Amino acid sequence: MALTVEQRFFLAILVIAFPFSAISGDPDILSDFVVPPGTNNTLLDGNFFTYTGIRPLVNSTPPTNFTVTKATMVEFPALNGQSVSYAVLQYPAGSVNPPHTHPRATELLFLTYGILEVGFVDTTNKLFTQRLEAGDMFVFPKGLVHYQFNCADNDSAMAISAFGSAAAGTVSVPSTVFGTNIDDDILAKSFKTDVYTIQKLKEGFPPKA
Amino acid sequence: MALTVEQRFFLAILVIAFPFSAISGDPDILSDFVVPPGTNNTLLDGNFFTYTGIRPLVNSTPPTNFTVTKATMVEFPALNGQSVSYAVLQYPAGSVNPPHTHPRATELLFLTYGILEVGFVDTTNKLFTQRLEAGDMFVFPKGLVHYQFNCADNDSAMAISAFGSAAAGTVSVPSTVFGTNIDDDILAKSFKTDVYTIQKLKEGFPPKA
Amino acid sequence: MALTVEQRFFLAILVIAFPFSAISGDPDILSDFVVPPGTNNTLLDGNFFTYTGIRPLVNSTPPTNFTVTKATMVEFPALNGQSVSYAVLQYPAGSVNPPHTHPRATELLFLTYGILEVGFVDTTNKLFTQRLEAGDMFVFPKGLVHYQFNCADNDSAMAISAFGSAAAGTVSVPSTVFGTNIDDDILAKSFKTDVYTIQKLKEGFPPKA
Amino acid sequence: MALTVEQRFFLAILVIAFPFSAISGDPDILSDFVVPPGTNNTLLDGNFFTYTGIRPLVNSTPPTNFTVTKATMVEFPALNGQSVSYAVLQYPAGSVNPPHTHPRATELLFLTYGILEVGFVDTTNKLFTQRLEAGDMFVFPKGLVHYQFNCADNDSAMAISAFGSAAAGTVSVPSTVFGTNIDDDILAKSFKTDVYTIQKLKEGFPPKA
Amino acid sequence: MALTVEQRFFLAILVIAFPFSAISGDPDILSDFVVPPGTNNTLLDGNFFTYTGIRPLVNSTPPTNFTVTKATMVEFPALNGQSVSYAVLQYPAGSVNPPHTHPRATELLFLTYGILEVGFVDTTNKLFTQRLEAGDMFVFPKGLVHYQFNCADNDSAMAISAFGSAAAGTVSVPSTVFGTNIDDDILAKSFKTDVYTIQKLKEGFPPKA
Amino acid sequence: MALTVEQRFFLAILVIAFPFSAISGDPDILSDFVVPPGTNNTLLDGNFFTYTGIRPLVNSTPPTNFTVTKATMVEFPALNGQSVSYAVLQYPAGSVNPPHTHPRATELLFLTYGILEVGFVDTTNKLFTQRLEAGDMFVFPKGLVHYQFNCADNDSAMAISAFGSAAAGTVSVPSTVFGTNIDDDILAKSFKTDVYTIQKLKEGFPPKA
Repeated sequence: MALTVEQRFFLAILVIAFPFSAISGDPDILSDFVVPPGTNNTLLDGNFFTYTGIRPLVNSTPPTNFTVTKATMVEFPALNGQSVSYAVLQYPAGSVNPPHTHPRATELLFLTYGILEVGFVDTTNKLFTQRLEAGDMFVFPKGLVHYQFNCADNDSAMAISAFGSAAAGTVSVPSTVFGTNIDDDILAKSFKTDVYTIQKLKEGFPPKA
Repeated sequence: MALTVEQRFFLAILVIAFPFSAISGDPDILSDFVVPPGTNNTLLDGNFFTYTGIRPLVNSTPPTNFTVTKATMVEFPALNGQSVSYAVLQYPAGSVNPPHTHPRATELLFLTYGILEVGFVDTTNKLFTQRLEAGDMFVFPKGLVHYQFNCADNDSAMAISAFGSAAAGTVSVPSTVFGTNIDDDILAKSFKTDVYTIQKLKEGFPPKA
Repeated sequence: MALTVEQRFFLAILVIAFPFSAISGDPDILSDFVVPPGTNNTLLDGNFFTYTGIRPLVNSTPPTNFTVTKATMVEFPALNGQSVSYAVLQYPAGSVNPPHTHPRATELLFLTYGILEVGFVDTTNKLFTQRLEAGDMFVFPKGLVHYQFNCADNDSAMAISAFGSAAAGTVSVPSTVFGTNIDDDILAKSFKTDVYTIQKLKEGFPPKA
Repeated sequence: MALTVEQRFFLAILVIAFPFSAISGDPDILSDFVVPPGTNNTLLDGNFFTYTGIRPLVNSTPPTNFTVTKATMVEFPALNGQSVSYAVLQYPAGSVNPPHTHPRATELLFLTYGILEVGFVDTTNKLFTQRLEAGDMFVFPKGLVHYQFNCADNDSAMAISAFGSAAAGTVSVPSTVFGTNIDDDILAKSFKTDVYTIQKLKEGFPPKA
Repeated sequence: MALTVEQRFFLAILVIAFPFSAISGDPDILSDFVVPPGTNNTLLDGNFFTYTGIRPLVNSTPPTNFTVTKATMVEFPALNGQSVSYAVLQYPAGSVNPPHTHPRATELLFLTYGILEVGFVDTTNKLFTQRLEAGDMFVFPKGLVHYQFNCADNDSAMAISAFGSAAAGTVSVPSTVFGTNIDDDILAKSFKTDVYTIQKLKEGFPPKA
Repeated sequence: MALTVEQRFFLAILVIAFPFSAISGDPDILSDFVVPPGTNNTLLDGNFFTYTGIRPLVNSTPPTNFTVTKATMVEFPALNGQSVSYAVLQYPAGSVNPPHTHPRATELLFLTYGILEVGFVDTTNKLFTQRLEAGDMFVFPKGLVHYQFNCADNDSAMAISAFGSAAAGTVSVPSTVFGTNIDDDILAKSFKTDVYTIQKLKEGFPPKA
């Protein structure tokens, strides 16, 4: 079988790149910052270090559903290697940010507007809760299940959360467990319930096509 | 037996200091190994580096429920600072190790006997599953939700899992979410169901007194 | 109030031990969170994970000088081992946050109100600048000299900055160089100027008594 | 000199790749897992996370020489970035795993069958030994010289060892020192013996062609 | 728009390389050493691990200005991933190494010849100074502003400094602040002086074209 | 001199606590530097950051045996948490630094005087050698077996080695293997020789009483 020129170059890249796929690590980098491959450094300027994706949220009408707007390494490549990122969280009255974990970082939430009931569960199964007012901070330790609830009757709430990683990742418990086609019997045994209840719960979290 | 004043102070220091030894990151230590405070190094011998807590499982009757026996820094202090630990997993026929995460390490499962259906969900909500035979290994990446199921009709299964941390920690999803008194309304909204269903699910996971 | 001998020893241990908790690297910890020595874990609740020190800034009159309010491991001990912290920055019109570095973390600034001119210099001596509007983010890479300037004629500005460490540290260039009694001749040679100019500059930064 | 097209592409790759060769690090990765370059993620399934290379050892006839079967990043690429790996160790009666070190990880040995005499030497030159029975674990701290010996007269032994790195590496002392053409005089001086003895020892460890 | 063949290959590299730019980290590597991409490992020999760039300084005439000769990852690629590097420092009588920081490593200076006055300022703005004689060592902690001064009337001095990173980086305070076109008004406010003084100071540090 | 009760308790704490400071990983610390417990910070000055233990070697008569003088965390406590240390190596003509490894750091050797033949063996059992002249540097990657030999007929040699850890540790192969009472049979099998040869080799390395 003959390879095309393009295929051969891909192969060449593969062979060279493989030893280096060991990669990554949020810790220390060996340069001031990391630029995407192919970047012409002489053209690099302050724009690379600026993220304007949150600007539209300022003075906008609050959303009608709980909404997360992220500024991580994916949206803001200059964060690569810098071990920090943000998410802006908007909670209409009565809305919930369901139980979830961040596998790669602690979350430090700063409530800028409104009130929130928050909680997390540690690995000894102890629940820690708090009612936050505007200006308060709360720390959700790395890898633990946590949630937030806007318990206000009418007022929206807004928070900004910092993460000690450029790519904290999110595992949302309801959609991870009930929205990914895990076998009904396994879930019924796990949650000590019947298959019917599992199937009802799954209806709320249709898997993505 | 009465302690002298000096002994009591040593004990006091020990009790306070012990949590500190847990702090010092899993990464590199600055000594060959870490001993508990107050250890007389000249008495230290091979026993400190040996763990016999799994020995009783050899040739024992398999348990009738899914059972985890751990060998982490808590049970085996010599692991402190060494970034590795074990758990032995015993699965009666049809039993499940429910969805859970390990906040501080990847799990590398080695199936020594029987068959298992295993799965994990990544942060894009994609489910990865596999049916394992004796001798197979499967990797559950750090911080992701995963489970195992002994799908055999009659035969038990046994696995040993290695972790890249001396204190991986475990967050079991069902008991974390439904066994820790998180508010019913918050859970109902999170799981897109009614309070009645939440309360039924909670019955399976009574909080520890 | 007189302390018993035992209480005094506990205090002594506490005072000595506290700096130790600061030692244990920012990276991974071997527990969900780190509590100060002597903490009774059964009394630990959500308050430990909450910081209310920023609450007074909400709806307060803006300060007349550039002001930093920190939420680091010192003010908020629950951040120990969690690799993240915050600072709230308030800039009256025309005020400057002078050139400084953070030895232990990148700063990710989020401008919540007003406008700012910001800049940093990399290790090749290249200056990167930007004019930020409310809602914009800017990243100041770890260890590099940076500054912010509220270039507005009348309007104050406010920002929140996240750091990828619980103890980023700050080295302010003007006070470090001119406010710490470094020898005049050494400074004159370093800045290629005369001793008179150095002495004039030092007048602006009287060393702390 | 004119470069061929292929040479120019290799150069291009080199130039781009160089800043990124700083690479690697077993610690935290910025994604759930690392796939080899060129992987079509939509085709990725549970097989990538499964290793079946140990399956043939199950119920096989024990080998007649000491045998190591590895499951590291090389054999099992999904381990990349996950900080954990395995080796299966098979010891015929009377066989030895000679003194060696692992430069990049602690070894946690779990003896599944038989008996073993094990030992390691710390950096103060203190020897720690133990006789292990089936079900026992022993920890060989990172970078220290250690060995295992099946002291049984007739019975084979089998162990599985976990490492806190995906690529622990092995430095076998006898073949490293006597099987790599280090100068005879240097070795004679180092081991305080004569060149004749060194040459006799070297006969046991012929360098690979 | 049609891309040239070369452009398409660059794009291909970009797409493949991007997930791997997360990279780097001075900490642990997953191999014994890191070689530049494209290296033919069978040709690799002791020369790769040798750096002769300092050899010309031996027995040479001392320079007439303060001179730094570096042996970092840039000059000596074998240091990549090994977390250590060197700089050789030559001080004519009366010369100064101006206040600077190393963002990515502590400096451990060893004075081989002459005398030096050294100092650093910690993050509480406390100055630590010392007068060193030949054979003395001094540690400049990571990220803090420090300087050295050869206070001898006639005699030159020479030092070698080790860094705990292969790429420590250097931020020289005078040229960073006054040689990079930071706005005069911002500097005047920062240093509590007038624009005229700032402009005079800038004359000593003309920006690189 | 009699100590008061309080002084004795402080001493007790110090003795116990010291190994703890050693624990906290070599990576990032959360403070500028780490001081021994009980240190009065207001009395801390430049002396703490200075090490004069090498000064006597300057202009001294070269030793008649290979001699290592260390400046690690043990001798120079200010190195704690700073990830760097030194050793000064003195080689009479014809002397050898026998094969050894450093479990926790790469060694970067700088030859200040004389000539040396050096070598190391990687984990594929490949030997890398070099003949160094004064002014040359050579890197011995972390955890690999290496040696140095002063091949000069009459002239001594001197080197300084930097390590990327404050506590690199040393495992000397000859004394570790033959000077620690490892069982003769195990060594004979390991080195594919007879017990007589092992016993002869052991005579060169009498275990410490």
